[in-house]
Amino acid sequence: MSSNNYTNKKNLNICVILVGLPCRGKTFISNKIKTYLTWVMINCKIFNIGDYRRKQLGNVLDEFINVDSDFYNAENVEALKIRLNSYEQALDDMTKWFQTNEGVAVLDGTSSTREHRKWLLERLRKQHIEPVFVESYCDDQELINLNIQELIKSSPDKKDFNFYEEKIKNYIKVYESLNQFEDEKDYTFVKLMKMSNGLEQAVINKVQSYLESKILFYVMNLNYLKPSKVIWLSRHGESVYNVEKKIGGDSRLSERGLLYARKIPKLLKEQGFDEENQMTAWTSTLVRTNETAQYLPFQQVLPWRALNELDAGLCDGMTYEEIEEKYPEDFKERDDNKFEYRYKGGESYKDVVLRLEPVMMELERQSNILIITHQAVLRCIYAYFMNIPQDQSPWVAIPLHTLIKLEVRPYGACKVTLIKANIPAVSTYKEKGTSSVGENSDITNNSSRNLLTDSL
Amino acid sequence: MSSNNYTNKKNLNICVILVGLPCRGKTFISNKIKTYLTWVMINCKIFNIGDYRRKQLGNVLDEFINVDSDFYNAENVEALKIRLNSYEQALDDMTKWFQTNEGVAVLDGTSSTREHRKWLLERLRKQHIEPVFVESYCDDQELINLNIQELIKSSPDKKDFNFYEEKIKNYIKVYESLNQFEDEKDYTFVKLMKMSNGLEQAVINKVQSYLESKILFYVMNLNYLKPSKVIWLSRHGESVYNVEKKIGGDSRLSERGLLYARKIPKLLKEQGFDEENQMTAWTSTLVRTNETAQYLPFQQVLPWRALNELDAGLCDGMTYEEIEEKYPEDFKERDDNKFEYRYKGGESYKDVVLRLEPVMMELERQSNILIITHQAVLRCIYAYFMNIPQDQSPWVAIPLHTLIKLEVRPYGACKVTLIKANIPAVSTYKEKGTSSVGENSDITNNSSRNLLTDSL
Repeated sequence: MSSNNYTNKKNLNICVILVGLPCRGKTFISNKIKTYLTWVMINCKIFNIGDYRRKQLGNVLDEFINVDSDFYNAENVEALKIRLNSYEQALDDMTKWFQTNEGVAVLDGTSSTREHRKWLLERLRKQHIEPVFVESYCDDQELINLNIQELIKSSPDKKDFNFYEEKIKNYIKVYESLNQFEDEKDYTFVKLMKMSNGLEQAVINKVQSYLESKILFYVMNLNYLKPSKVIWLSRHGESVYNVEKKIGGDSRLSERGLLYARKIPKLLKEQGFDEENQMTAWTSTLVRTNETAQYLPFQQVLPWRALNELDAGLCDGMTYEEIEEKYPEDFKERDDNKFEYRYKGGESYKDVVLRLEPVMMELERQSNILIITHQAVLRCIYAYFMNIPQDQSPWVAIPLHTLIKLEVRPYGACKVTLIKANIPAVSTYKEKGTSSVGENSDITNNSSRNLLTDSL
Repeated sequence: MSSNNYTNKKNLNICVILVGLPCRGKTFISNKIKTYLTWVMINCKIFNIGDYRRKQLGNVLDEFINVDSDFYNAENVEALKIRLNSYEQALDDMTKWFQTNEGVAVLDGTSSTREHRKWLLERLRKQHIEPVFVESYCDDQELINLNIQELIKSSPDKKDFNFYEEKIKNYIKVYESLNQFEDEKDYTFVKLMKMSNGLEQAVINKVQSYLESKILFYVMNLNYLKPSKVIWLSRHGESVYNVEKKIGGDSRLSERGLLYARKIPKLLKEQGFDEENQMTAWTSTLVRTNETAQYLPFQQVLPWRALNELDAGLCDGMTYEEIEEKYPEDFKERDDNKFEYRYKGGESYKDVVLRLEPVMMELERQSNILIITHQAVLRCIYAYFMNIPQDQSPWVAIPLHTLIKLEVRPYGACKVTLIKANIPAVSTYKEKGTSSVGENSDITNNSSRNLLTDSL
């Protein structure tokens, strides 16, 4: 995992340090950084200070009870010790992790004071880990309240709204934003600002390497304070090539495929989609996704070349049986490392991930998007949202004639709902080690393809 | 050119509007944006307001004579007319350009007042062109003086230092920086700040699309106020595979290749390289570039996987004759569109450009770098710095055992010097339409490979 095109050994290792008051999207940003870096094959591990503090204090002494304004008072020796201990333990574990890993660590805490950040910086630099601060600064009460409500929903603590409001008030007493003009002006940081007066800015300071700028660039594209949204995914309807068991090509839809295309608007309506919603469809530039999108009551249908199916090169237009016969060794090689295997004259899943980056970045910025694309591309997109490791992503079963509803939430994993159109289609799922694909649309649960079927 | 992986048709069209006082690197930034976008196959055209103004006023009336503080005075109707006319003409040409092109236009002028920027914004939006402002804001007199000196060197006007100082003073009287907190806070912009107190920040505001953020991200990586630098390039020394006329592989250096490796430090010294200079070598991860770097008196040699040779896939280890015999159709196809042709199971030049992006971005940030890499990769890097169109870049002749010195300058093109080691080596240059490569190291000038040989 450590070898990739984005880095040389000098760029690594980086520690991203979150800065900000509670309910400013820090944990969401941390999780997203990990998702993104893992997806582009850069090692990443999150060290959550809250977890360390809870471990230290025991489950009885909840962090929220102990952290009042006095907790960050430098004269409160006991609290200072606990606070530093949590960070010490996190940093110790981080050091251990860097001994056997190259990559990016994320320190998910509040790191609210200048003194504390200075201490972190010096400690990390001693170990040749480069600190990068990411601050979320927001005074927009509406956005903050929204985040508190989301936290209440997902938190096992069952705390109420007032509790979080009080907690934030206590933090505000000691909080010092990154001092971008004076003593912290030499730090590498991004300060993300969303203000009640409509100001929406990012200040980027002293970026040292490409990998750092890549991370900050990604973070800037996130809707970290309003992350809840629904993304719709679908494969194109059954194509003539699907029926003929051929891969690739640019064939039209079969009759059943056209039935599915006609049915999508109804499926969306059943899910509460309102034509008043300004939804946009993204398709590939191939005929079968465009035909699938043709009956959508949307204002915009945008074709992306980056959403085209994985290029099967020489094998384009062949059946799996033909490929196995003609290129038996390649066929086996692909099964052994499907993510990295590159079709002769074509692409690997890894290549597809690389070209999908712009789409994912744009997707992070948007809402109300329905993506109609192809099996391999959808696997890559699905792996991103569901944090599926890249060695498993090419084996995810995504059936035809099924609409996928992905609910992105600020805390916790995405929620997936599969909406079947109940229009028969061939199965295009190829089992590992065989060249046969299923005969019908019913997906049965088995080890190699249980990632999506678990949700069915 | 308009179809690429970075965009859907909605992202386009964008107009990047430079903002800033004279000698703040605006023209350098404009040129770099064009270089970069062209390199990643996005259409880009620069509209230089100075050129339009000069055309309008005639060569006799120099812009510098006419632009005094009064020129931007709203009561100076004549000057206002001239100023607006230059912009009007540029915008008219831009509108025409967008009628037949998708992509990014760059408006290279000072656009110094809020009123003017508002006028631009409204005019562009009416034509569905999305304005993106890029401001260079700098109060560091040392950096500014450096830029004035460079301008004097390259300008055909032969003006002196005082002239530029006076010119800037006149502009300062009317200049209004982007008002990031009030009436311009809804514009899409990046405000690049380099201040005499060491502050080095970028403020990014309301980015609307991935392509916009990509452009701003690139601009942020530029050393736009101190761009003069030298970049050293070299292919690895002659390898055993080179001698055997095989492509790809991971062979060691030939005896002559080792002689070249031993000679590089001497060549650098002859060019004035001092061991006190902290120079860094970047190599690929392949044996032949590492062996070539082994005698360098540098502190750091960093291998990048992204610098590995174009993957020839199935053809790896074959000679051109063997490829022609085994895959005659592919061989012809590659000659017809060498930039896009993807070797079976391997890569195209286009793929290489995609994976080189991080290296180029890092290279923009660095100085004192010697890159030791491979023929195809070097062609891509060379095309970037020399603005060679991508359909021609795969045909650039880059001989073995030759050190390339690239002098990057703030105004005008890079200066290239080829330093021959005078150690014989095979030629690995394959003529279009043949499978034969040259027999010796002497490059003769001919139409298909005159890009580098012109400089020999």
